Amino acid sequence: MALNSKIILHIMGLLLLCNGGFMLIAALVSGIYADGATLGIAIASITTLFIGISAMYFTRGHKKEVKRKEGYLIVTFGWIVMSLSGMLPYIFSNAIPDITNAFFETMSGYTTTGASILDDIESLPEGILLWRSLTHWIGGMGIIVLAIAILPLLGIGGMQLFAAEAPGPNTDKLHPRITDTAKRLWFIYLGYTAAETLLLKLAGMTFFDAINHSLATLSTGGFSTKNLSLAYWNDQPLIQYIVILFMFLAGSNFVLSYFAFKGKVQKIIKDEEFKFYSAFIVGFTILAALVVYFQANVPVTEYHPMPLGAGESSFRHSLFQVIAVITTTGFVTADFTGWTPFLTVFFFGLMFMGGSAGSTAGGIKVMRHLLIIKNGLLEFKRTLHINAVIPVRYNNKTVKEHIVYNIIGFFVLYMLLFIIGALVLGALGLDFVSAIGGAASSLGNVGPAFGSLNPLSNFNGLPDLGKWWCCFLMLAGRLELFTVLILLTPYFWKRT
Amino acid sequence: MALNSKIILHIMGLLLLCNGGFMLIAALVSGIYADGATLGIAIASITTLFIGISAMYFTRGHKKEVKRKEGYLIVTFGWIVMSLSGMLPYIFSNAIPDITNAFFETMSGYTTTGASILDDIESLPEGILLWRSLTHWIGGMGIIVLAIAILPLLGIGGMQLFAAEAPGPNTDKLHPRITDTAKRLWFIYLGYTAAETLLLKLAGMTFFDAINHSLATLSTGGFSTKNLSLAYWNDQPLIQYIVILFMFLAGSNFVLSYFAFKGKVQKIIKDEEFKFYSAFIVGFTILAALVVYFQANVPVTEYHPMPLGAGESSFRHSLFQVIAVITTTGFVTADFTGWTPFLTVFFFGLMFMGGSAGSTAGGIKVMRHLLIIKNGLLEFKRTLHINAVIPVRYNNKTVKEHIVYNIIGFFVLYMLLFIIGALVLGALGLDFVSAIGGAASSLGNVGPAFGSLNPLSNFNGLPDLGKWWCCFLMLAGRLELFTVLILLTPYFWKRT
Ligand SMILES: [K+]
Ligand SMILES: [K+]
Repeated sequence: MALNSKIILHIMGLLLLCNGGFMLIAALVSGIYADGATLGIAIASITTLFIGISAMYFTRGHKKEVKRKEGYLIVTFGWIVMSLSGMLPYIFSNAIPDITNAFFETMSGYTTTGASILDDIESLPEGILLWRSLTHWIGGMGIIVLAIAILPLLGIGGMQLFAAEAPGPNTDKLHPRITDTAKRLWFIYLGYTAAETLLLKLAGMTFFDAINHSLATLSTGGFSTKNLSLAYWNDQPLIQYIVILFMFLAGSNFVLSYFAFKGKVQKIIKDEEFKFYSAFIVGFTILAALVVYFQANVPVTEYHPMPLGAGESSFRHSLFQVIAVITTTGFVTADFTGWTPFLTVFFFGLMFMGGSAGSTAGGIKVMRHLLIIKNGLLEFKRTLHINAVIPVRYNNKTVKEHIVYNIIGFFVLYMLLFIIGALVLGALGLDFVSAIGGAASSLGNVGPAFGSLNPLSNFNGLPDLGKWWCCFLMLAGRLELFTVLILLTPYFWKRT
Repeated sequence: MALNSKIILHIMGLLLLCNGGFMLIAALVSGIYADGATLGIAIASITTLFIGISAMYFTRGHKKEVKRKEGYLIVTFGWIVMSLSGMLPYIFSNAIPDITNAFFETMSGYTTTGASILDDIESLPEGILLWRSLTHWIGGMGIIVLAIAILPLLGIGGMQLFAAEAPGPNTDKLHPRITDTAKRLWFIYLGYTAAETLLLKLAGMTFFDAINHSLATLSTGGFSTKNLSLAYWNDQPLIQYIVILFMFLAGSNFVLSYFAFKGKVQKIIKDEEFKFYSAFIVGFTILAALVVYFQANVPVTEYHPMPLGAGESSFRHSLFQVIAVITTTGFVTADFTGWTPFLTVFFFGLMFMGGSAGSTAGGIKVMRHLLIIKNGLLEFKRTLHINAVIPVRYNNKTVKEHIVYNIIGFFVLYMLLFIIGALVLGALGLDFVSAIGGAASSLGNVGPAFGSLNPLSNFNGLPDLGKWWCCFLMLAGRLELFTVLILLTPYFWKRT
């Protein structure tokens, strides 16, 4: 089968067109603030629009059909093309002149990782700060389409299971599902972003900070406009609780939000993933809060005001960090790697959790953990009753064996890539803790990590090769591994 | 089904009888050296023999049949009963008066982990030192029976696959296989131990050190009679090369050794696991040696003489530590956690490798990694061709799907237990690196770990609870997880 390269190019052109459009918004904001970056961003926008339109023009006579193999290429190349064009505003405005750094920051944006190479965020022009947040938000939109419409068709990591629950026509073609389901969920995504912006503004943030943090929350991205991240508002609990609420929503299945607005509350209560997602957060928060309150070596008070007392402060910071890590948002109100040794291991473990399927969160995700745990328990039963067929059930339905296989395969691959990821970072000179923390955080699209990459630090200290390697890990993690890695197998390139 | 508790007790009695017998040997050696521990060891022996004989006497009228469920209980209780009786020589001789410490040292012995709580090994009486090495060797014998005869029948972790290759009658009853196959392999095990003792003596070790180290090598245990472990002989490369050879053999499938003695060399060359086991060792050694030679921060020379030059020294230490960790023997010639950050991560990764199936090595094991990697690669092919049935092949045979499932289930459970293991150690106050290193090392039965548990240190600094927790991890890891954990599930205790 020859690949339909025309349609791949055409879609890349379309992506560039959209990206260029978003850059125009950033240029406009830059102009309003007269922050000095306007011309740079505008040139980036025009360049991107021009290349996008050209690509679309020269491939206008393409066949409309997209086959599976082309699907993988479109998704992976799509994210790379977005990052290559998305770094132009940084470079042209001289905000991040170095190509490695600019690419890292952009890839970290579109993959909604939120790891940064910037030592002083607050010195950046407003237009650039907005562009940075927008890369998150655009990435989040991409993830929604991916989860709802594309990955299930590509047969990746058990997403079929989840897609069966999604609203919209159930055809096997990409187009109707994208236009229909994705649009509904994008609308919710947009609505939540607007709602958070409004609430944060009312709670006392500036409008600029409010919109930037909302863009970074709903996409579970984690870029902040402040060097201290959300710790900047440690004396304003209300702001942090609002962010907590929206991180929770961003890490839950958007399809459930859709049901909520349709009044189908029953569907939400019955959803096994949502139950466990909530239960995990509650359980882990209580555990963390007790440890922080009674044990933390570095008292929360040391650099944190406690407007509502030590109890509330312990609870809030614990809840905030548990949700920030589980949903892979990665906002920071306190350095959890400095709390206690136990909590350091604890948060390291949480890095492997991930939010819900159908959310913008990265990581392994609750649905997969649930199925792996269920299957693991049943494996004991199967060991005892060798001849019985004992299937896994999820949301009251029997899960097909090949899907369970698929999910476990994903888990194994994730762990393997984590170990290789850490080894490579170690080879590049990172110490043990930073290497395994950096790999786990990049692969899970979390953002903050451990050791020299702790929540109060950033990724700027990495050698250039390490930055590129983290870009690869972020991309592979974000696109559910298979989408990217399959391009590296001989099976893919064999003509059949 | 009511459990046949009589036969369980009867077999426990038999185990105690054997154990008491071995203690007599230690008492005898103690007497020859007049080391002051003779009476203590003798009392331990008599106590053990008495309890064993009593148990056997009172259960002499048992039904001969052993069912699967009883199999799990016999294996797990067997190791615990051995450890409970095996710690008596330490306690009665006052060598290790503390019960927690004595139990830890004994469990570490029988599980062939080789982690120690002793700060000064060389001050121990000879009889106790020999007993310590004997616990390894007895544990190794147990592992051989387990791997060849018991686990395959219990349907655990893909061992069925390996057992099909083993020599001996192919019936479904435990007895004929145990008596037949296991005896042949025990003979090889004994032969190798004698051969290593002889060679080490010839190379310059004292006879006492030679036999102790041989007992600890063939069982992949790792207890040494020297505080410095094998680093004591860093100026005698020949001794270390001999140990390297026998660690390699101990970590390879004993069935292959059997074939070698039968002259069936073809069977060895064709064995996929052996090929990869060897290839991994060669590859990892070259990599490590290059890094040590060109990069190591702590030069090997600092506390190591280099009788044959820096090149040989780098090669030897790298080869030694790679084999010591892969085969989970855990002998130490140099502190690999002090070499370079990369090698620290590297050796941490190797902790998850394990030797061959059918060896005395612990860990996940090469066969499982091979099948997981093969299946993982095929998963890409399956993703591209959704309707094709693409089975995994191993040693030129198609592997049944439920066995692949079994193996992947083992891997997932292993990783889960590792994370929980590390979390608990963290909760008990260990720092991050020590917690994850200690969990990986205990679960894999390696011995030396990282951080405060580094190869030059020991496990004595752990709090008591931490020692008991490590005992659990060592036992679960040694008995291939399912055997122990299945006893903790409700399925097991449900009457059917
Ligand atoms: K993030
Ligand atoms: K060992």
